[in-house]
Amino acid sequence: MSKWVYSFGAGRNEGSAQMRNLLGGKGANLAEMASIGLPVPPGFTITTEVCTAYYENGRQYPAELREQVAEALARVETAVGLKFGDHQKPLLVSVRSGARVSMPGMMDTVLNLGLNDQTVDGLANASGDARFAWDSYRRFIQMFGSVVLDVDHHRFEEIIEHVKLDRGVLEDTELTAQDWHRVVAGYKDMVEEVTGEPFPQDPEAQLWGAIGAVFGSWMNQRANTYRRLHDIPESWGTAVNVQAMVFGNMGSDCATGVCFTRDPSTGENIFYGEYLINAQGEDVVAGIRTPQPMSEARAKPGERSMEAAMPAAYAELVQVRATLEKHYHDMQDIEFTVQQNKLYMLQTRNGKRTAAASLKIAVDMAREGLIDEKEAVQRVNPAALDQLLHPTLDPSAKRSAIAKGLPASPGAACGVIVFSADEAEARAQKGEAVILVRIETSPEDIHGMHAAKGILTTRGGMTSHAAVVARGMGRPCVAGAGSITVDYASQALMAGGRTLRGGETITLDGATGEVFAGTVAMIEPKLSGDFATLMEWADKVRRLKVRANAETPVDADTARKFGAEGIGLCRTEHMFFDPERIGAVRQMIMAETEQGRRAALARLLPFQRADFLDLFRIMAGLPVTIRLLDPPLHEFLPHAEHELAEVAETLGADVEAMKRRAAELSEANPMLGHRGCRLGVTFPEIYEMQARAIFEAAVAIGKETHKAPVPEIMIPLVAMTRELEITRAMVDKVAQQVFAESGYHVTYQVGTMIELPRAALIADRIAEAADFFSFGTNDLTQTVFGLSRDDAGKFLPTYVEKGILPKDPFVSIDIDGVGALVRIAAEKGRGVKPDLKLGICGEHGGDPASIHFCESVGLDYVSCSPYRVPVARLAAAQAALASGGGDRTA
Amino acid sequence: MSKWVYSFGAGRNEGSAQMRNLLGGKGANLAEMASIGLPVPPGFTITTEVCTAYYENGRQYPAELREQVAEALARVETAVGLKFGDHQKPLLVSVRSGARVSMPGMMDTVLNLGLNDQTVDGLANASGDARFAWDSYRRFIQMFGSVVLDVDHHRFEEIIEHVKLDRGVLEDTELTAQDWHRVVAGYKDMVEEVTGEPFPQDPEAQLWGAIGAVFGSWMNQRANTYRRLHDIPESWGTAVNVQAMVFGNMGSDCATGVCFTRDPSTGENIFYGEYLINAQGEDVVAGIRTPQPMSEARAKPGERSMEAAMPAAYAELVQVRATLEKHYHDMQDIEFTVQQNKLYMLQTRNGKRTAAASLKIAVDMAREGLIDEKEAVQRVNPAALDQLLHPTLDPSAKRSAIAKGLPASPGAACGVIVFSADEAEARAQKGEAVILVRIETSPEDIHGMHAAKGILTTRGGMTSHAAVVARGMGRPCVAGAGSITVDYASQALMAGGRTLRGGETITLDGATGEVFAGTVAMIEPKLSGDFATLMEWADKVRRLKVRANAETPVDADTARKFGAEGIGLCRTEHMFFDPERIGAVRQMIMAETEQGRRAALARLLPFQRADFLDLFRIMAGLPVTIRLLDPPLHEFLPHAEHELAEVAETLGADVEAMKRRAAELSEANPMLGHRGCRLGVTFPEIYEMQARAIFEAAVAIGKETHKAPVPEIMIPLVAMTRELEITRAMVDKVAQQVFAESGYHVTYQVGTMIELPRAALIADRIAEAADFFSFGTNDLTQTVFGLSRDDAGKFLPTYVEKGILPKDPFVSIDIDGVGALVRIAAEKGRGVKPDLKLGICGEHGGDPASIHFCESVGLDYVSCSPYRVPVARLAAAQAALASGGGDRTA
Repeated sequence: MSKWVYSFGAGRNEGSAQMRNLLGGKGANLAEMASIGLPVPPGFTITTEVCTAYYENGRQYPAELREQVAEALARVETAVGLKFGDHQKPLLVSVRSGARVSMPGMMDTVLNLGLNDQTVDGLANASGDARFAWDSYRRFIQMFGSVVLDVDHHRFEEIIEHVKLDRGVLEDTELTAQDWHRVVAGYKDMVEEVTGEPFPQDPEAQLWGAIGAVFGSWMNQRANTYRRLHDIPESWGTAVNVQAMVFGNMGSDCATGVCFTRDPSTGENIFYGEYLINAQGEDVVAGIRTPQPMSEARAKPGERSMEAAMPAAYAELVQVRATLEKHYHDMQDIEFTVQQNKLYMLQTRNGKRTAAASLKIAVDMAREGLIDEKEAVQRVNPAALDQLLHPTLDPSAKRSAIAKGLPASPGAACGVIVFSADEAEARAQKGEAVILVRIETSPEDIHGMHAAKGILTTRGGMTSHAAVVARGMGRPCVAGAGSITVDYASQALMAGGRTLRGGETITLDGATGEVFAGTVAMIEPKLSGDFATLMEWADKVRRLKVRANAETPVDADTARKFGAEGIGLCRTEHMFFDPERIGAVRQMIMAETEQGRRAALARLLPFQRADFLDLFRIMAGLPVTIRLLDPPLHEFLPHAEHELAEVAETLGADVEAMKRRAAELSEANPMLGHRGCRLGVTFPEIYEMQARAIFEAAVAIGKETHKAPVPEIMIPLVAMTRELEITRAMVDKVAQQVFAESGYHVTYQVGTMIELPRAALIADRIAEAADFFSFGTNDLTQTVFGLSRDDAGKFLPTYVEKGILPKDPFVSIDIDGVGALVRIAAEKGRGVKPDLKLGICGEHGGDPASIHFCESVGLDYVSCSPYRVPVARLAAAQAALASGGGDRTA
Repeated sequence: MSKWVYSFGAGRNEGSAQMRNLLGGKGANLAEMASIGLPVPPGFTITTEVCTAYYENGRQYPAELREQVAEALARVETAVGLKFGDHQKPLLVSVRSGARVSMPGMMDTVLNLGLNDQTVDGLANASGDARFAWDSYRRFIQMFGSVVLDVDHHRFEEIIEHVKLDRGVLEDTELTAQDWHRVVAGYKDMVEEVTGEPFPQDPEAQLWGAIGAVFGSWMNQRANTYRRLHDIPESWGTAVNVQAMVFGNMGSDCATGVCFTRDPSTGENIFYGEYLINAQGEDVVAGIRTPQPMSEARAKPGERSMEAAMPAAYAELVQVRATLEKHYHDMQDIEFTVQQNKLYMLQTRNGKRTAAASLKIAVDMAREGLIDEKEAVQRVNPAALDQLLHPTLDPSAKRSAIAKGLPASPGAACGVIVFSADEAEARAQKGEAVILVRIETSPEDIHGMHAAKGILTTRGGMTSHAAVVARGMGRPCVAGAGSITVDYASQALMAGGRTLRGGETITLDGATGEVFAGTVAMIEPKLSGDFATLMEWADKVRRLKVRANAETPVDADTARKFGAEGIGLCRTEHMFFDPERIGAVRQMIMAETEQGRRAALARLLPFQRADFLDLFRIMAGLPVTIRLLDPPLHEFLPHAEHELAEVAETLGADVEAMKRRAAELSEANPMLGHRGCRLGVTFPEIYEMQARAIFEAAVAIGKETHKAPVPEIMIPLVAMTRELEITRAMVDKVAQQVFAESGYHVTYQVGTMIELPRAALIADRIAEAADFFSFGTNDLTQTVFGLSRDDAGKFLPTYVEKGILPKDPFVSIDIDGVGALVRIAAEKGRGVKPDLKLGICGEHGGDPASIHFCESVGLDYVSCSPYRVPVARLAAAQAALASGGGDRTA
């Protein structure tokens, strides 16, 4: 015979915390608490398997269930000396759902079940408090009515209001037993009117009604949607917990409370929580009465702590706190009730906490010996670190939101609105804090983005230019705030019915995507020593190396400060936009002949060489992956007609020729156009200049420091093996030339981005010509989905909302599609070349879920923006631990 | 001991035509001819395995080779009664390469090998003709010098010119034995000067020098490049043929000739060719003397046919012709020499022929019983059919080429230049033949393309809008002629230094991509009964169904005429551009609310329904696959500012609102933007209207004809299963509504395009929601390569030229990348749903190589533009035969 029901409490604990899948989180922990000797009112759990069987069997319960429930209930009756449905000494129970993970949409709780027109009198007699009994009865009808019988809760409130009006009182507390009696009568009439049936008086019927409601709610619309969004299989099912009631509302020696074993906002090791005397569970959170602090130390004048009011129960609770932490090795969120000075535990679970608290608790507990270092590393959500590295808005500050965009780069920023990069730079130089507001940004805006405290765009997604660059710089950014209209001509933005002009102040919250008018107070980040400790522990266990995407000395310095182990992506084109260089770049583009291009490139060479000198110095001894020119040439030309004319004049070029060239270069789909190695193949002189700059700089650093860097030269957008062979041959040739000229040799590698589906599909052949692969998952996501990240903003949010896509695939790697190709390429590449170095340099390199995927595929490193490096280090450590690794120090 | 040398002729034939891989084409056929009793001068073939061994072994010959060559040579000596190197009766030989397939870049031929300062006298004595002997000697030095010793051929010509100048004569024929003696002396001195060594006098050394040159040329640059471009493995190697010389230049009873067993231009069953009396091989093709016809019937006044001049040899040759055709079952291209009235066969191979000839020969031979029907089907190159279906330029007509673009749609066309679709339509209505010249075309130009005789664009590739639409309409088109500059403002085009204005005449050759100024005479296609016969035979053996891509009744009619078995792709958006409808389409796009969009869509509904009524009637009983709206909405809005204003006025809309909407809709990469099912998901009302139009039309035809069509509704651009589930649910709902309203039910299917890498990678899951897959290999090629077909023109030609890509992947499917995904999707899809219908509707559906791939993957049908249907039928038949199928009638 299958066992469908597990008892707990009063000396019979058939479950344990390990049986979460069978008993749900709540049931498993009730059994666990009871079995370690904590005071848990007796009860039983109907297993999740009943739920599954119920649905598999056309909504029929297993045959043995009723009998097993009856037995378990009888045991509870015996244990507490009461009888379910007895008119004198009625047993009342609570019925609660309890899935493996807590899930919105599920039926939650029915208290006081077992009350009816007879047992209410029994309760009144037994407790000696008729008001309590009738209040309990009306609470039961209300809960049962709304969650089991689906009666609109307003209908109940109307009846109470009506009685209060009648009685001329304002507060529920002023109502007497008699009044509650009237309320109960009103409730019963109303329920019968709505449902067409009298309110069930039979406690058995009540019990099965509540159980059925829990199981029924497993398949309701909200629960289904939630499961789909969170990948929770339908087959998991929910459990139902039935437990003897204890009452915190039977008088002034009764109380109920909710607390955390440590402070969930700071992580401080103090007992934190609140309680109410003479109250039932929901009163604490309902906000009608002000809950009181737990400890006397925390009590403000006028407050009465539990420590003072109920010293014995409090002392026991402090014991329980220690027991629970020692038992669960984690901070607990607990619910308790004191009935007539006796403490009962009703729930325990791991407590939610802020980022700062999670860090502190993890490190503290490891130091206290409650957990080991590896466990501490697993306790902190890597995404939470982002909060710790950036300023945040003061949660208590007043604010006036005007729009919401995408949380594109974390942190908060406040400053005056400017609409151009040049103005941003000019005003910033005068010491003003500015927010750069653009419809979208382009590489020409980089100096302004650097100068600004924050960036706001009205177009583009999480991997738009603005978002990527802002994250790289550590600037807060709200991107794609489509409800804002920007009018450059009138230097104003319109949003939420308001118009804000250039020079007015706004505040951005890059962590939520919110935009506020005016100044909102901020909290500066404080990086505690705990942060460094945790990072150290993480580094001990991770296998994946972590590099940074960086081009400038500032970025490279930041990256090292955050622990990057090299540069995984240096985008050389970012170096071309500097005002000193862009002229030569444009001259090169305008040249009609190879000779003309070579002349312009010769002017660029010293600049590029200097760039690499700086990077190689900062990254001494660490690998630096340099991607040769990638974007289409038209990105370097101005767009507006008057700009074209200006540039033509500067270059001494014919404006008509300039326009013609710009028109020639324009593309219908630049993402799929003449870029990447296609440029290197058609204009070899560009890659030759870049290779020369790299090798000359590497040689110079080698001679200077006797510690030459190992440049990893990366060819972008390879689709055919031959493209890599041709461009690689160019690079090798230049290397030999420079080594011969300088009489100095440096080791280097040549590899390729795998960022097109075709490259992944023929990776075995490409591997023969490559020293390394770096997965460019930004472009791979674009091509695998056929989705332009610049244009996806129009429908991607709808897609994520509707659950068509679980997450933005530009943020977290799409394992089924993009991931499938990464896996194919990794296997094919390593099949040919077992020691092929594999890395990832898309935006996914800083996303924890994607890092787990990278670990599972066996990549060698991830590369991400400098400010994400700590996140990546922690995520990499967790991934190593999850995959059974992490024993590097063992 | 390995056998490295195979003898032929004079009664010892160790090879045969089947041994082409070992002996090369030439050697295999020499042995074959000899073994069926034809007069072949004796010789031997050094096998391709020697070539392979030579390269595998550091350019060393196998140990036994010299001995085997010596033996084989001795046999030849005995057979012809001459001795290699003998001063009195010297044996001379020819040395020729002979790979499996003929290959440019390989060393071709050295004749008269064995001559030196002594043997030349022996030859003079034996032949009684000193001039012949010295002429032969200088020819040998010249050939050996240039191909074996790598001496520039100009150096030889200079010496002859010098002697002629000296002697005051103009023609080679005027030179005497003495003169040739002087030439030989000059040649020897010059060769010694250039190479630093005397010209080899030892016949053995000459022989091994020539053999070494043949093997050496297998690895030269040109041969390597050719092999890479044509996928010929290096390991195949080449053979070397050494054969006793016979002389057509020993007097007036000698001759040499080249002929075809049937007319290679028309296929007519007559003996076709030319010969020259007293000449050696190269004289026939050198053009110094005019070759004469073979048969008396073909001789024009003043010509002397071989039939008349050498009746006995001619009669023997006519016998040989019959023997060869009977033996090889194909038209042969043969070389012969007559030495002193005796006929010798020097080569036979299958003859090249025109499209028309290949068709006629195949059908004739099958009727004559030389081959069977299946063989006939395999004999005609499907691509050649294209020539037969379109007008072509008269090859003898004068022409003045001004530019060359891509051969985007076959056929020739001639007409006056117009630069706009409206003008094309206006002038065509007046009866003028016009050529529409555009930088590129867009869907708004379709009426002008229809009105034009041909289309010329200066941008875009083989699958640009112009190319695809032109092929669909059967209009000749030259696309992407980048050397032409079009200036709409001045209504002129500039090309090749000339300016042509609107109204001037040009001619296009869509088969070659050439553009000519003025009128070039054309030949209209004549479709013979042979065509219908061959198609009938093809249909008997093919497994793949062939459908057409068609939207209009005209296209659908054409498709049926050409044998299409349904419509595989009806692009509904093409129906939206009609002037009657575009207003409603734009109104829909401009609407700010769903209600507004529904109102506009209601206006479109009757038009769409009418479209489908027409198609369903024409395709009665055949499947019709209809793709719901695919392109981004901005494609339907005008681009220029004044057009926007015009349209705004027509719609009664605010021009500013119109501009704003156009700006809102504009996309950075429309190919990867808000299109396909993304429109259907975000604007369900569009797909609902389209589904309603389809079902109402299907019901109407069902009621009218009692033969309802089976619409196959196709959802484009699916990347996630959920997209298909959502849009499919919409379609199903509308279907049920229409069936309920009409009281009539039709069977239908809902499937999806597989045109994104992600769809292919998760095809097993998508298959669960799909009744069929249609591979959209145009878009799949774009995403797999990360290559916009609109922009690829800038580098794709370079890529194909450089051999980075073997072929334009938009023309012939990329088997390694795109094909890999098609295979994955087919396997995953069928794994879940074994009877899943699979088709292809990209441009590749009409490409023979791609059709072979489709057969190998097991697709059910291909769909292509109407004019490609016969090509596809034939290619499908060949693919079935190649894969061992084709026994449908057996």
